[in-house]
Amino acid sequence: MGEKWVLMKTAQTPTNIAVIKYWGKRDETLILPVNDSISVTLDPAHLCTTTTVAVSPAFQQDRMWLNGKEISLSGGRYQNCLREIRKRAREVEDKERGIKIEKKDWEKLHLHIASYNNFPTAAGLASSAAGFACLVFALAKLMNVSEDESQLSAIARQGSGSACRSLFGGFVKWIMGKEDDGSDSLAVQLVDEKHWEDLFIIIAVVSSRQKETSSTSGMRESVETSSLLQHRAKEVVPKRTIQMEEAIQNRDFASFAKLACADSNQFHAVCLDTLPPIFYMNDTSHRIISYVEKWNRSEGTPQVAYTFDAGPNAVLIARDRKAAAQLIQRLLFYFPPKSDTDLDSYLLGDKTILKDAGLEGLKDVEALSPPPENGSAQKYPGDVSYFICTRPGKGPVLLSNDKLALLDPETGLPK
Amino acid sequence: MGEKWVLMKTAQTPTNIAVIKYWGKRDETLILPVNDSISVTLDPAHLCTTTTVAVSPAFQQDRMWLNGKEISLSGGRYQNCLREIRKRAREVEDKERGIKIEKKDWEKLHLHIASYNNFPTAAGLASSAAGFACLVFALAKLMNVSEDESQLSAIARQGSGSACRSLFGGFVKWIMGKEDDGSDSLAVQLVDEKHWEDLFIIIAVVSSRQKETSSTSGMRESVETSSLLQHRAKEVVPKRTIQMEEAIQNRDFASFAKLACADSNQFHAVCLDTLPPIFYMNDTSHRIISYVEKWNRSEGTPQVAYTFDAGPNAVLIARDRKAAAQLIQRLLFYFPPKSDTDLDSYLLGDKTILKDAGLEGLKDVEALSPPPENGSAQKYPGDVSYFICTRPGKGPVLLSNDKLALLDPETGLPK
Repeated sequence: MGEKWVLMKTAQTPTNIAVIKYWGKRDETLILPVNDSISVTLDPAHLCTTTTVAVSPAFQQDRMWLNGKEISLSGGRYQNCLREIRKRAREVEDKERGIKIEKKDWEKLHLHIASYNNFPTAAGLASSAAGFACLVFALAKLMNVSEDESQLSAIARQGSGSACRSLFGGFVKWIMGKEDDGSDSLAVQLVDEKHWEDLFIIIAVVSSRQKETSSTSGMRESVETSSLLQHRAKEVVPKRTIQMEEAIQNRDFASFAKLACADSNQFHAVCLDTLPPIFYMNDTSHRIISYVEKWNRSEGTPQVAYTFDAGPNAVLIARDRKAAAQLIQRLLFYFPPKSDTDLDSYLLGDKTILKDAGLEGLKDVEALSPPPENGSAQKYPGDVSYFICTRPGKGPVLLSNDKLALLDPETGLPK
Repeated sequence: MGEKWVLMKTAQTPTNIAVIKYWGKRDETLILPVNDSISVTLDPAHLCTTTTVAVSPAFQQDRMWLNGKEISLSGGRYQNCLREIRKRAREVEDKERGIKIEKKDWEKLHLHIASYNNFPTAAGLASSAAGFACLVFALAKLMNVSEDESQLSAIARQGSGSACRSLFGGFVKWIMGKEDDGSDSLAVQLVDEKHWEDLFIIIAVVSSRQKETSSTSGMRESVETSSLLQHRAKEVVPKRTIQMEEAIQNRDFASFAKLACADSNQFHAVCLDTLPPIFYMNDTSHRIISYVEKWNRSEGTPQVAYTFDAGPNAVLIARDRKAAAQLIQRLLFYFPPKSDTDLDSYLLGDKTILKDAGLEGLKDVEALSPPPENGSAQKYPGDVSYFICTRPGKGPVLLSNDKLALLDPETGLPK
């Protein structure tokens, strides 16, 4: 085995948004939840993490760079993922390059890891979910691990709970499991991304002056102090999960929207019932909910579902392209960009929806009429930082194009 | 019996703020709640309703004026109170004026009612609680009703649920009762206003652009749609009520504050768990909670309890005068008046607390240092409309001074 070679794999993994929420752990170290959860995977073209993992006998220690900056791997969550995936490493051979790594070599060899999010890390868009899923997926490929995605999800789960749901595309269920060792707490795909192609997803990244409680400490405090959390986990979520699976299988948008909105609201209710109370939604979040509720009622049947994670950002799921176009008209009416922002940098992701909405530029936004269900409504410029338009998307993929690798193939250091 | 005479009574009744919340009816018509609640009565010197009731053979119909404007008495809630109190009317004699009303006369005689709140009706300060309590109390005096305050509270309850708690001073418990006819759903005094004289109460009337859901329709929607409400009513509140009664009996502020804050938060959590969700608190409310929580933690033991009703206003209960002075310093630091508002119209009620806080004028407010527990904190001028400083107070009283009557003793019309 030569001393100079570097062996690399690069993977891309989506982020996901829960429509039945995960809130509360029954085991803090293994990251085992108090209830099942269900998520939709977002199109990695718009929101994803790319991770390159490399191994070389020349590496002196495990190192990692996140968005170009070296970070420590000493945390328990990284260590748990690295340990679990190393346990499952198998023999790897690259005959062309004359490289062979025996199963036992993996214990001594060090890794370099570089990870990059194609969206702002601080925007509260579940970057750790995509990140840990991508780390585990890329390492599994590098180390020729034979475990399937569900088994890998149980490893990614130990990095960040919701990461387990990023191992699949489409709609994904994280089964809470019963075992003390967490071996049955893993993700399964309910349907793939082609099952319900009508859906459009618009994310409103909401401006916030508040520093938010991290979801890790927030859910710990909820478990310890909320008298409603256990009731939710034991009595409410099990029924809701079954109903949500049915709604997804049947592409029943009315039921889907009702369940998703109710579950988002209940998660935030549990946060409010925590001591001291946790507020993730702000006045802008509340306004978005009110507008959606009013519009849905005026239409007689839901056009849009909303869901909010541990922050003020709204994730809005529209039943189809037409509803998405009407939604973006409404959103841009209430929350126009500040005067110094152009439309192109205010709506990211899939911009084709703008044409459907008849919005070619800022002038069209300014000319928008108040939504008919809300007469003469007030506008709040600046209260939304930007929007992202996306769709349900596919699961992790290995990138074969070496140009997309984040590490130099010679040095194993960030490019 | 002459045709010209007018017989009148004038009463003053306090408002009250629940520290264990009433949210949800099991009977909409009789106004029977799904759980017990506990309130503190506020000093009527600062927040009260004055009501004059008059009877005369010259009156052609029942009429009522609220804050000088005639309003309809045709609503079921007024009708229920009038019917119930008329049922209990007895013989009344004024020998001096030669007036005698037989028990049976009350069915034919008409009433004039004038009511006035010494605080802004629209401020969301439970004006209907004081109003219906005052109506029932004043009518009971006029009609020589022999029922005690608890029995009267069961009548006032049919006007507005929380009105039953305004029949007493100090701390009051509304017992939910078990009977279908509501006869045992009434208020009892836990302790009078002298029991815990240390307490100070500061109300922040929060500016709001939102139109709020009425508590009547809000609680109906919660009962129908919240999966957490029944759990709260059956499992959480019964234990909390016992603990709260103990805390009040023992003047145990730490327990009192913990329970009051938790119960306020849980009520708002249930509102959020309602479909569509109800938001009564806004970003300013959230900020006030965060400041109080941070300060309480920095002191090691609670200095202030907060509670919020069906609106964004904060009711802050300070453990003693010293804590109240420190609280008003903090509140005025974060929420100074707008530049065109003077301090005298920005802090209403008991202004003696300003001297304790060393705040004689706006210059002193501007010179306030950031609270030590919150370093360099942002200020939000204009986010609070005004403050009211008050204390726990006494129950309803009859006013013997005829000058305070709201109706003309000759005509029975508003003065």
